[in-house]
Amino acid sequence: MHIVREMLDTYPADFGETDKAKLASCIQACAECGQACTTCADACLSEDMVAELVTCIRTDLDCADMCLATERMLSRRTGYDANLTRSFLEACAAACKACGDECEHHASMHEHCRICAEACHRCEQACRELLSAF
Amino acid sequence: MHIVREMLDTYPADFGETDKAKLASCIQACAECGQACTTCADACLSEDMVAELVTCIRTDLDCADMCLATERMLSRRTGYDANLTRSFLEACAAACKACGDECEHHASMHEHCRICAEACHRCEQACRELLSAF
Amino acid sequence: MHIVREMLDTYPADFGETDKAKLASCIQACAECGQACTTCADACLSEDMVAELVTCIRTDLDCADMCLATERMLSRRTGYDANLTRSFLEACAAACKACGDECEHHASMHEHCRICAEACHRCEQACRELLSAF
Amino acid sequence: MHIVREMLDTYPADFGETDKAKLASCIQACAECGQACTTCADACLSEDMVAELVTCIRTDLDCADMCLATERMLSRRTGYDANLTRSFLEACAAACKACGDECEHHASMHEHCRICAEACHRCEQACRELLSAF
Repeated sequence: MHIVREMLDTYPADFGETDKAKLASCIQACAECGQACTTCADACLSEDMVAELVTCIRTDLDCADMCLATERMLSRRTGYDANLTRSFLEACAAACKACGDECEHHASMHEHCRICAEACHRCEQACRELLSAF
Repeated sequence: MHIVREMLDTYPADFGETDKAKLASCIQACAECGQACTTCADACLSEDMVAELVTCIRTDLDCADMCLATERMLSRRTGYDANLTRSFLEACAAACKACGDECEHHASMHEHCRICAEACHRCEQACRELLSAF
Repeated sequence: MHIVREMLDTYPADFGETDKAKLASCIQACAECGQACTTCADACLSEDMVAELVTCIRTDLDCADMCLATERMLSRRTGYDANLTRSFLEACAAACKACGDECEHHASMHEHCRICAEACHRCEQACRELLSAF
Repeated sequence: MHIVREMLDTYPADFGETDKAKLASCIQACAECGQACTTCADACLSEDMVAELVTCIRTDLDCADMCLATERMLSRRTGYDANLTRSFLEACAAACKACGDECEHHASMHEHCRICAEACHRCEQACRELLSAF
Protein backbone atom coordinates (compact mmCIF):
# COMPACT_ATOMS: atom_id res chain seq x y z
CA MET A 1 0.00 0.00 0.00
CA HIS A 2 2.53 2.56 -1.21
CA ILE A 3 -0.41 4.98 -1.43
CA VAL A 4 0.00 5.68 2.30
CA ARG A 5 3.40 7.29 1.80
CA GLU A 6 2.40 8.98 -1.45
CA MET A 7 -0.55 10.64 0.28
CA LEU A 8 1.52 11.72 3.31
CA ASP A 9 3.96 13.39 0.92
CA THR A 10 1.18 15.62 -0.45
CA TYR A 11 0.23 17.08 2.92
CA PRO A 12 0.25 20.89 2.57
CA ALA A 13 2.16 21.61 5.80
CA ASP A 14 5.37 20.45 7.43
CA PHE A 15 5.22 17.51 9.82
CA GLY A 16 7.41 18.83 12.56
CA GLU A 17 8.73 16.30 15.04
CA THR A 18 7.20 13.09 13.74
CA ASP A 19 9.24 10.79 11.58
CA LYS A 20 7.32 10.38 8.33
CA ALA A 21 8.65 6.90 7.54
CA LYS A 22 7.62 5.52 10.93
CA LEU A 23 4.25 7.13 10.57
CA ALA A 24 3.67 5.58 7.14
CA SER A 25 4.76 2.16 8.44
CA CYS A 26 2.37 2.37 11.35
CA ILE A 27 -0.61 3.45 9.21
CA GLN A 28 0.09 0.57 6.85
CA ALA A 29 0.53 -1.92 9.70
CA CYS A 30 -2.86 -0.85 11.11
CA ALA A 31 -4.51 -1.31 7.70
CA GLU A 32 -3.00 -4.78 7.25
CA CYS A 33 -3.78 -5.86 10.79
CA GLY A 34 -7.38 -4.68 10.56
CA GLN A 35 -7.81 -6.57 7.30
CA ALA A 36 -6.21 -9.73 8.71
CA CYS A 37 -8.38 -9.62 11.85
CA THR A 38 -11.62 -9.15 9.89
CA THR A 39 -10.70 -12.10 7.66
CA CYS A 40 -9.49 -14.28 10.54
CA ALA A 41 -12.76 -13.76 12.45
CA ASP A 42 -14.67 -14.96 9.40
CA ALA A 43 -12.36 -17.91 8.72
CA CYS A 44 -12.77 -18.97 12.38
CA LEU A 45 -16.55 -18.87 11.85
CA SER A 46 -16.18 -21.39 9.04
CA GLU A 47 -14.07 -23.87 11.01
CA ASP A 48 -15.79 -27.05 12.25
CA MET A 49 -14.46 -26.29 15.71
CA VAL A 50 -15.91 -22.76 15.79
CA ALA A 51 -17.11 -23.29 19.38
CA GLU A 52 -13.47 -23.39 20.51
CA LEU A 53 -12.63 -20.20 18.62
CA VAL A 54 -15.19 -17.76 20.00
CA THR A 55 -12.69 -15.80 22.10
CA CYS A 56 -10.43 -15.57 19.07
CA ILE A 57 -13.29 -14.20 16.95
CA ARG A 58 -14.18 -11.64 19.57
CA THR A 59 -10.59 -10.44 19.97
CA ASP A 60 -10.25 -10.23 16.17
CA LEU A 61 -13.29 -7.95 15.99
CA ASP A 62 -12.04 -5.66 18.78
CA CYS A 63 -8.62 -5.43 17.19
CA ALA A 64 -10.05 -4.68 13.73
CA ASP A 65 -12.09 -1.80 15.20
CA MET A 66 -9.15 -0.32 17.13
CA CYS A 67 -6.79 -0.63 14.14
CA LEU A 68 -9.31 1.24 12.03
CA ALA A 69 -9.66 4.10 14.54
CA THR A 70 -5.87 4.33 14.81
CA GLU A 71 -5.24 4.10 11.05
CA ARG A 72 -7.65 6.96 10.43
CA MET A 73 -6.39 9.06 13.32
CA LEU A 74 -2.77 8.71 12.22
CA SER A 75 -3.75 9.62 8.66
CA ARG A 76 -4.89 13.04 9.88
CA ARG A 77 -2.25 15.74 10.41
CA THR A 78 -4.37 18.86 10.81
CA GLY A 79 -4.40 20.14 14.40
CA TYR A 80 -1.92 17.44 15.42
CA ASP A 81 -2.10 16.55 19.14
CA ALA A 82 0.78 14.46 20.54
CA ASN A 83 -1.08 13.39 23.69
CA LEU A 84 -4.10 12.16 21.78
CA THR A 85 -1.89 10.31 19.30
CA ARG A 86 -0.20 8.58 22.23
CA SER A 87 -3.56 7.46 23.67
CA PHE A 88 -4.63 5.88 20.40
CA LEU A 89 -1.27 4.16 19.91
CA GLU A 90 -1.28 2.69 23.41
CA ALA A 91 -4.80 1.31 23.02
CA CYS A 92 -3.94 -0.06 19.58
CA ALA A 93 -0.78 -1.76 20.85
CA ALA A 94 -2.86 -3.34 23.65
CA ALA A 95 -5.52 -4.60 21.22
CA CYS A 96 -2.86 -6.00 18.87
CA LYS A 97 -1.05 -7.72 21.73
CA ALA A 98 -4.26 -9.32 23.04
CA CYS A 99 -5.29 -10.52 19.58
CA GLY A 100 -1.79 -11.63 18.56
CA ASP A 101 -1.42 -13.68 21.74
CA GLU A 102 -4.86 -15.27 21.31
CA CYS A 103 -4.31 -16.11 17.62
CA GLU A 104 -0.90 -17.56 18.44
CA HIS A 105 -2.59 -20.27 20.54
CA HIS A 106 -4.25 -21.57 17.37
CA ALA A 107 -1.41 -20.84 14.95
CA SER A 108 -0.32 -24.43 14.60
CA MET A 109 -3.84 -25.58 13.75
CA HIS A 110 -5.13 -22.67 11.67
CA GLU A 111 -3.06 -20.91 9.05
CA HIS A 112 -5.35 -17.84 9.24
CA CYS A 113 -4.54 -17.49 12.94
CA ARG A 114 -0.83 -17.82 12.23
CA ILE A 115 -0.83 -15.06 9.62
CA CYS A 116 -3.13 -12.90 11.73
CA ALA A 117 -0.91 -13.30 14.82
CA GLU A 118 2.06 -12.07 12.76
CA ALA A 119 0.11 -9.06 11.47
CA CYS A 120 -0.94 -8.22 15.05
CA HIS A 121 2.60 -8.45 16.39
CA ARG A 122 3.92 -6.30 13.50
CA CYS A 123 1.26 -3.69 14.21
CA GLU A 124 1.92 -3.73 17.96
CA GLN A 125 5.62 -3.23 17.17
CA ALA A 126 4.88 -0.37 14.74
CA CYS A 127 2.73 1.37 17.37
CA ARG A 128 5.48 1.03 19.97
CA GLU A 129 8.11 2.39 17.58
CA LEU A 130 5.97 5.40 16.82
CA LEU A 131 5.35 5.91 20.56
CA SER A 132 9.08 5.87 21.22
CA ALA A 133 9.61 8.47 18.48
CA PHE A 134 7.77 11.16 20.44
CA MET B 1 -31.67 4.04 22.65
CA HIS B 2 -33.27 1.64 25.17
CA ILE B 3 -32.27 -1.12 22.74
CA VAL B 4 -28.78 -1.11 24.32
CA ARG B 5 -30.08 -2.34 27.67
CA GLU B 6 -32.63 -4.70 26.08
CA MET B 7 -29.88 -6.38 24.08
CA LEU B 8 -27.53 -6.65 27.07
CA ASP B 9 -30.33 -8.40 28.98
CA THR B 10 -30.48 -11.16 26.35
CA TYR B 11 -26.82 -12.13 26.66
CA PRO B 12 -26.67 -15.90 27.26
CA ALA B 13 -24.13 -15.80 30.10
CA ASP B 14 -23.75 -13.96 33.40
CA PHE B 15 -21.81 -10.70 33.44
CA GLY B 16 -19.72 -11.25 36.53
CA GLU B 17 -18.08 -8.17 37.96
CA THR B 18 -19.25 -5.46 35.62
CA ASP B 19 -22.21 -3.33 36.55
CA LYS B 20 -24.74 -3.76 33.77
CA ALA B 21 -26.34 -0.32 34.18
CA LYS B 22 -22.99 1.50 33.95
CA LEU B 23 -22.10 -0.58 30.92
CA ALA B 24 -25.35 0.26 29.14
CA SER B 25 -24.89 3.96 29.96
CA CYS B 26 -21.38 3.96 28.56
CA ILE B 27 -22.34 2.16 25.32
CA GLN B 28 -25.14 4.66 24.81
CA ALA B 29 -22.90 7.64 25.62
CA CYS B 30 -20.40 6.41 23.00
CA ALA B 31 -23.16 6.06 20.41
CA GLU B 32 -24.49 9.56 21.08
CA CYS B 33 -21.06 11.14 21.18
CA GLY B 34 -20.00 9.47 17.92
CA GLN B 35 -23.18 10.71 16.28
CA ALA B 36 -22.74 14.25 17.64
CA CYS B 37 -19.10 14.41 16.50
CA THR B 38 -19.90 13.20 12.97
CA THR B 39 -22.65 15.81 12.70
CA CYS B 40 -20.57 18.59 14.28
CA ALA B 41 -17.71 17.99 11.83
CA ASP B 42 -20.14 18.40 8.96
CA ALA B 43 -21.86 21.46 10.45
CA CYS B 44 -18.42 23.08 10.92
CA LEU B 45 -17.74 22.39 7.22
CA SER B 46 -20.82 24.45 6.35
CA GLU B 47 -19.92 27.47 8.45
CA ASP B 48 -18.62 30.57 6.66
CA MET B 49 -15.67 30.59 9.03
CA VAL B 50 -14.71 26.98 8.28
CA ALA B 51 -11.03 27.96 8.08
CA GLU B 52 -11.09 28.72 11.82
CA LEU B 53 -12.73 25.38 12.62
CA VAL B 54 -10.33 22.90 11.01
CA THR B 55 -8.89 21.68 14.31
CA CYS B 56 -12.41 21.21 15.62
CA ILE B 57 -13.36 19.14 12.55
CA ARG B 58 -10.28 16.97 12.90
CA THR B 59 -10.86 16.33 16.61
CA ASP B 60 -14.52 15.51 15.87
CA LEU B 61 -13.46 12.88 13.34
CA ASP B 62 -10.94 11.27 15.71
CA CYS B 63 -13.46 11.21 18.53
CA ALA B 64 -16.19 9.69 16.32
CA ASP B 65 -13.81 6.88 15.31
CA MET B 66 -12.71 6.13 18.88
CA CYS B 67 -16.29 6.22 20.20
CA LEU B 68 -17.27 3.71 17.54
CA ALA B 69 -14.45 1.30 18.41
CA THR B 70 -15.32 1.60 22.10
CA GLU B 71 -19.08 1.27 21.59
CA ARG B 72 -18.57 -1.95 19.64
CA MET B 73 -15.97 -3.34 22.02
CA LEU B 74 -18.18 -2.73 25.06
CA SER B 75 -21.12 -4.36 23.28
CA ARG B 76 -19.18 -7.63 23.14
CA ARG B 77 -19.16 -9.85 26.23
CA THR B 78 -17.75 -13.11 24.87
CA GLY B 79 -14.20 -13.74 26.10
CA TYR B 80 -14.31 -10.61 28.26
CA ASP B 81 -10.87 -9.11 29.00
CA ALA B 82 -10.70 -6.46 31.75
CA ASN B 83 -7.28 -5.11 30.71
CA LEU B 84 -8.31 -4.63 27.12
CA THR B 85 -11.57 -2.96 28.18
CA ARG B 86 -9.55 -0.56 30.30
CA SER B 87 -7.29 0.36 27.34
CA PHE B 88 -10.24 1.21 25.14
CA LEU B 89 -11.96 3.22 27.88
CA GLU B 90 -8.83 5.27 28.60
CA ALA B 91 -8.30 6.09 24.93
CA CYS B 92 -11.97 6.96 24.51
CA ALA B 93 -11.97 9.22 27.58
CA ALA B 94 -8.88 10.99 26.15
CA ALA B 95 -10.52 11.46 22.73
CA CYS B 96 -13.72 12.77 24.32
CA LYS B 97 -11.81 15.17 26.56
CA ALA B 98 -9.79 16.55 23.63
CA CYS B 99 -12.87 17.00 21.47
CA GLY B 100 -15.05 18.34 24.28
CA ASP B 101 -12.44 20.95 25.18
CA GLU B 102 -11.98 21.98 21.55
CA CYS B 103 -15.74 22.24 20.89
CA GLU B 104 -16.20 24.24 24.08
CA HIS B 105 -14.03 27.03 22.62
CA HIS B 106 -16.68 27.54 19.93
CA ALA B 107 -19.74 26.77 22.03
CA SER B 108 -20.87 30.37 22.36
CA MET B 109 -20.72 30.89 18.59
CA HIS B 110 -21.92 27.54 17.28
CA GLU B 111 -24.82 25.64 18.79
CA HIS B 112 -23.53 22.38 17.21
CA CYS B 113 -20.25 22.78 19.07
CA ARG B 114 -22.10 23.44 22.33
CA ILE B 115 -24.22 20.28 22.05
CA CYS B 116 -21.25 18.25 20.86
CA ALA B 117 -19.08 19.45 23.78
CA GLU B 118 -21.77 18.28 26.19
CA ALA B 119 -22.00 14.86 24.50
CA CYS B 120 -18.20 14.53 24.67
CA HIS B 121 -18.06 15.42 28.35
CA ARG B 122 -20.92 13.00 29.15
CA CYS B 123 -19.10 10.23 27.29
CA GLU B 124 -15.78 11.00 28.98
CA GLN B 125 -17.59 10.84 32.32
CA ALA B 126 -19.30 7.53 31.44
CA CYS B 127 -15.94 6.01 30.45
CA ARG B 128 -14.37 7.15 33.74
CA GLU B 129 -17.26 5.73 35.76
CA LEU B 130 -16.95 2.40 34.04
CA LEU B 131 -13.18 2.46 34.60
CA SER B 132 -13.71 3.08 38.31
CA ALA B 133 -16.13 0.13 38.48
CA PHE B 134 -13.38 -2.41 37.75
CA MET C 1 -31.17 9.44 20.96
CA HIS C 2 -32.89 12.84 20.76
CA ILE C 3 -29.40 14.24 20.06
CA VAL C 4 -29.83 13.29 16.39
CA ARG C 5 -32.64 15.78 15.90
CA GLU C 6 -31.03 18.42 18.13
CA MET C 7 -27.86 18.28 16.03
CA LEU C 8 -29.76 18.40 12.72
CA ASP C 9 -31.51 21.55 13.96
CA THR C 10 -28.15 23.32 14.37
CA TYR C 11 -27.06 22.84 10.76
CA PRO C 12 -26.05 26.27 9.39
CA ALA C 13 -27.91 25.95 6.07
CA ASP C 14 -31.43 25.07 4.94
CA PHE C 15 -32.18 21.45 4.12
CA GLY C 16 -34.13 21.98 0.96
CA GLU C 17 -36.22 19.07 -0.23
CA THR C 18 -35.53 16.48 2.42
CA ASP C 19 -37.96 15.99 5.25
CA LYS C 20 -36.01 16.58 8.44
CA ALA C 21 -38.16 14.30 10.61
CA LYS C 22 -37.75 11.33 8.25
CA LEU C 23 -34.04 11.98 8.08
CA ALA C 24 -33.67 12.04 11.87
CA SER C 25 -35.72 8.81 12.15
CA CYS C 26 -33.55 7.07 9.60
CA ILE C 27 -30.26 8.15 11.22
CA GLN C 28 -31.54 6.92 14.57
CA ALA C 29 -32.80 3.64 13.09
CA CYS C 30 -29.35 3.04 11.56
CA ALA C 31 -27.67 3.72 14.92
CA GLU C 32 -30.00 1.34 16.78
CA CYS C 33 -29.77 -1.36 14.13
CA GLY C 34 -25.98 -1.21 14.03
CA GLN C 35 -25.87 -1.49 17.82
CA ALA C 36 -28.33 -4.41 17.85
CA CYS C 37 -26.41 -6.26 15.12
CA THR C 38 -23.05 -5.85 16.88
CA THR C 39 -24.57 -7.15 20.12
CA CYS C 40 -26.49 -9.98 18.43
CA ALA C 41 -23.33 -11.24 16.71
CA ASP C 42 -21.62 -11.43 20.07
CA ALA C 43 -24.59 -13.05 21.84
CA CYS C 44 -24.70 -15.69 19.06
CA LEU C 45 -21.00 -16.35 19.72
CA SER C 46 -21.85 -17.17 23.34
CA GLU C 47 -24.66 -19.62 22.53
CA ASP C 48 -23.92 -23.35 22.93
CA MET C 49 -25.23 -23.87 19.42
CA VAL C 50 -22.89 -21.26 17.87
CA ALA C 51 -22.11 -23.62 14.98
CA GLU C 52 -25.70 -23.24 13.77
CA LEU C 53 -25.55 -19.45 14.00
CA VAL C 54 -22.52 -18.65 11.85
CA THR C 55 -24.54 -17.24 8.96
CA CYS C 56 -26.47 -15.10 11.42
CA ILE C 57 -23.22 -13.75 12.89
CA ARG C 58 -21.85 -12.94 9.47
CA THR C 59 -25.01 -11.14 8.36
CA ASP C 60 -25.04 -9.20 11.64
CA LEU C 61 -21.49 -7.97 10.99
CA ASP C 62 -22.27 -6.91 7.41
CA CYS C 63 -25.41 -5.11 8.51
CA ALA C 64 -23.61 -3.30 11.36
CA ASP C 65 -20.99 -2.03 8.91
CA MET C 66 -23.53 -0.84 6.34
CA CYS C 67 -25.70 0.84 9.00
CA LEU C 68 -22.65 2.72 10.22
CA ALA C 69 -21.71 3.96 6.74
CA THR C 70 -25.31 5.04 6.15
CA GLU C 71 -25.75 6.67 9.57
CA ARG C 72 -22.63 8.75 9.01
CA MET C 73 -23.46 9.62 5.41
CA LEU C 74 -26.99 10.77 6.34
CA SER C 75 -25.57 12.86 9.19
CA ARG C 76 -23.65 14.95 6.65
CA ARG C 77 -25.51 17.73 4.82
CA THR C 78 -22.66 19.68 3.22
CA GLY C 79 -22.51 19.17 -0.54
CA TYR C 80 -25.69 17.06 -0.44
CA ASP C 81 -25.98 14.59 -3.36
CA ALA C 82 -29.38 12.93 -3.86
CA ASN C 83 -28.08 10.16 -6.11
CA LEU C 84 -25.39 9.14 -3.66
CA THR C 85 -27.84 9.23 -0.77
CA ARG C 86 -30.11 6.91 -2.72
CA SER C 87 -27.25 4.42 -3.31
CA PHE C 88 -26.45 4.22 0.40
CA LEU C 89 -30.11 3.86 1.37
CA GLU C 90 -30.70 1.05 -1.11
CA ALA C 91 -27.66 -0.89 0.07
CA CYS C 92 -28.63 -0.33 3.70
CA ALA C 93 -32.20 -1.50 3.11
CA ALA C 94 -30.80 -4.64 1.44
CA ALA C 95 -28.42 -5.34 4.34
CA CYS C 96 -31.20 -4.81 6.89
CA LYS C 97 -33.58 -7.06 4.98
CA ALA C 98 -31.00 -9.87 4.73
CA CYS C 99 -30.10 -9.63 8.40
CA GLY C 100 -33.69 -9.20 9.60
CA ASP C 101 -34.79 -12.28 7.65
CA GLU C 102 -31.88 -14.34 8.93
CA CYS C 103 -32.41 -13.30 12.57
CA GLU C 104 -36.12 -14.00 12.27
CA HIS C 105 -35.35 -17.68 11.70
CA HIS C 106 -33.90 -17.85 15.21
CA ALA C 107 -36.29 -15.40 16.88
CA SER C 108 -38.28 -18.04 18.71
CA MET C 109 -35.14 -19.58 20.20
CA HIS C 110 -32.99 -16.51 20.85
CA GLU C 111 -34.36 -13.30 22.29
CA HIS C 112 -31.34 -11.35 20.91
CA CYS C 113 -32.25 -12.47 17.39
CA ARG C 114 -35.89 -11.47 17.93
CA ILE C 115 -34.97 -7.93 19.06
CA CYS C 116 -32.32 -7.62 16.35
CA ALA C 117 -34.77 -8.76 13.63
CA GLU C 118 -37.16 -6.01 14.73
CA ALA C 119 -34.40 -3.37 14.68
CA CYS C 120 -33.40 -4.51 11.18
CA HIS C 121 -36.94 -4.35 9.87
CA ARG C 122 -37.47 -0.89 11.41
CA CYS C 123 -34.26 0.33 9.79
CA GLU C 124 -35.15 -1.19 6.40
CA GLN C 125 -38.52 0.57 6.64
CA ALA C 126 -36.90 3.90 7.62
CA CYS C 127 -34.54 3.65 4.62
CA ARG C 128 -37.44 2.93 2.27
CA GLU C 129 -39.46 5.87 3.64
CA LEU C 130 -36.54 8.20 3.14
CA LEU C 131 -36.05 6.83 -0.38
CA SER C 132 -39.70 7.49 -1.20
CA ALA C 133 -39.35 11.09 0.07
CA PHE C 134 -36.98 12.03 -2.75
CA MET D 1 -1.06 -5.50 0.87
CA HIS D 2 -0.33 -9.09 -0.19
CA ILE D 3 -1.87 -10.12 3.13
CA VAL D 4 -5.32 -9.89 1.50
CA ARG D 5 -4.60 -12.77 -0.87
CA GLU D 6 -2.67 -14.75 1.76
CA MET D 7 -5.64 -14.59 4.12
CA LEU D 8 -8.16 -15.52 1.41
CA ASP D 9 -6.06 -18.60 0.65
CA THR D 10 -6.48 -19.85 4.23
CA TYR D 11 -10.28 -19.84 4.15
CA PRO D 12 -11.46 -23.31 5.29
CA ALA D 13 -14.07 -23.82 2.55
CA ASP D 14 -14.19 -23.60 -1.24
CA PHE D 15 -15.19 -20.31 -2.82
CA GLY D 16 -17.56 -21.57 -5.47
CA GLU D 17 -18.37 -19.13 -8.26
CA THR D 18 -16.37 -16.09 -7.28
CA ASP D 19 -13.01 -15.46 -8.86
CA LYS D 20 -10.50 -15.26 -6.02
CA ALA D 21 -8.08 -12.94 -7.82
CA LYS D 22 -10.80 -10.40 -8.62
CA LEU D 23 -12.03 -10.59 -5.06
CA ALA D 24 -8.56 -9.94 -3.63
CA SER D 25 -8.07 -7.00 -6.03
CA CYS D 26 -11.36 -5.46 -5.01
CA ILE D 27 -10.71 -5.82 -1.26
CA GLN D 28 -7.32 -4.20 -1.73
CA ALA D 29 -8.74 -1.41 -3.91
CA CYS D 30 -11.31 -0.65 -1.18
CA ALA D 31 -8.58 -0.53 1.48
CA GLU D 32 -6.42 1.82 -0.61
CA CYS D 33 -9.32 4.04 -1.61
CA GLY D 34 -10.56 4.33 1.99
CA GLN D 35 -7.07 5.27 3.12
CA ALA D 36 -6.63 7.82 0.30
CA CYS D 37 -10.03 9.42 1.02
CA THR D 38 -9.37 9.74 4.76
CA THR D 39 -6.01 11.38 4.02
CA CYS D 40 -7.36 13.61 1.25
CA ALA D 41 -10.13 14.92 3.53
CA ASP D 42 -7.50 15.91 6.07
CA ALA D 43 -5.13 17.41 3.49
CA CYS D 44 -8.03 19.50 2.14
CA LEU D 45 -8.64 20.74 5.70
CA SER D 46 -5.08 22.06 5.77
CA GLU D 47 -5.28 23.96 2.49
CA ASP D 48 -5.59 27.75 2.67
CA MET D 49 -8.57 27.49 0.34
CA VAL D 50 -10.41 24.99 2.54
CA ALA D 51 -13.69 26.90 2.06
CA GLU D 52 -13.65 25.88 -1.61
CA LEU D 53 -13.01 22.23 -0.76
CA VAL D 54 -15.87 21.46 1.63
CA THR D 55 -17.80 19.33 -0.87
CA CYS D 56 -14.61 17.42 -1.61
CA ILE D 57 -14.05 16.75 2.10
CA ARG D 58 -17.61 15.55 2.56
CA THR D 59 -17.46 13.22 -0.44
CA ASP D 60 -14.11 11.88 0.81
CA LEU D 61 -15.66 11.00 4.17
CA ASP D 62 -18.66 9.25 2.60
CA CYS D 63 -16.42 7.29 0.26
CA ALA D 64 -14.07 6.24 3.08
CA ASP D 65 -17.03 4.90 5.08
CA MET D 66 -18.52 2.97 2.16
CA CYS D 67 -15.13 1.52 1.15
CA LEU D 68 -14.69 0.28 4.71
CA ALA D 69 -18.09 -1.42 4.82
CA THR D 70 -17.41 -3.03 1.43
CA GLU D 71 -13.83 -4.08 2.27
CA ARG D 72 -15.06 -5.84 5.40
CA MET D 73 -18.08 -7.40 3.75
CA LEU D 74 -16.00 -8.79 0.87
CA SER D 75 -13.48 -10.18 3.38
CA ARG D 76 -16.21 -12.42 4.83
CA ARG D 77 -17.00 -15.67 3.04
CA THR D 78 -19.14 -17.50 5.61
CA GLY D 79 -22.80 -17.63 4.57
CA TYR D 80 -21.99 -15.93 1.26
CA ASP D 81 -24.95 -14.06 -0.28
CA ALA D 82 -24.59 -12.98 -3.92
CA ASN D 83 -27.46 -10.46 -3.81
CA LEU D 84 -26.11 -8.72 -0.75
CA THR D 85 -22.61 -8.62 -2.21
CA ARG D 86 -24.05 -6.98 -5.32
CA SER D 87 -25.79 -4.28 -3.22
CA PHE D 88 -22.59 -3.36 -1.43
CA LEU D 89 -20.58 -3.28 -4.66
CA GLU D 90 -23.10 -1.04 -6.42
CA ALA D 91 -23.15 1.43 -3.54
CA CYS D 92 -19.36 1.39 -3.32
CA ALA D 93 -18.97 1.98 -7.06
CA ALA D 94 -21.36 4.94 -6.75
CA ALA D 95 -19.45 6.43 -3.80
CA CYS D 96 -16.13 6.00 -5.61
CA LYS D 97 -17.48 7.57 -8.78
CA ALA D 98 -18.87 10.59 -6.90
CA CYS D 99 -15.64 11.10 -4.96
CA GLY D 100 -13.37 10.42 -7.93
CA ASP D 101 -15.25 12.95 -10.06
CA GLU D 102 -15.19 15.57 -7.30
CA CYS D 103 -11.47 15.10 -6.57
CA GLU D 104 -10.69 15.27 -10.29
CA HIS D 105 -11.95 18.88 -10.35
CA HIS D 106 -9.11 19.81 -8.00
CA ALA D 107 -6.49 17.40 -9.35
CA SER D 108 -4.48 20.05 -11.16
CA MET D 109 -4.24 22.21 -8.04
CA HIS D 110 -3.90 19.60 -5.31
CA GLU D 111 -1.72 16.53 -5.63
CA HIS D 112 -3.71 14.77 -2.86
CA CYS D 113 -6.87 15.16 -4.92
CA ARG D 114 -5.12 13.79 -8.00
CA ILE D 115 -3.90 10.66 -6.22
CA CYS D 116 -7.22 10.22 -4.45
CA ALA D 117 -9.19 10.54 -7.71
CA GLU D 118 -7.06 7.75 -9.18
CA ALA D 119 -7.63 5.51 -6.15
CA CYS D 120 -11.38 6.15 -6.40
CA HIS D 121 -11.50 5.34 -10.09
CA ARG D 122 -9.45 2.15 -9.57
CA CYS D 123 -11.81 1.08 -6.78
CA GLU D 124 -14.91 1.88 -8.84
CA GLN D 125 -13.43 -0.22 -11.65
CA ALA D 126 -12.60 -3.11 -9.28
CA CYS D 127 -16.18 -3.09 -7.94
CA ARG D 128 -17.59 -3.16 -11.48
CA GLU D 129 -15.30 -6.03 -12.50
CA LEU D 130 -16.39 -8.05 -9.49
CA LEU D 131 -20.03 -7.25 -10.27
CA SER D 132 -19.58 -8.49 -13.82
CA ALA D 133 -18.06 -11.74 -12.52
CA PHE D 134 -21.34 -12.84 -10.93
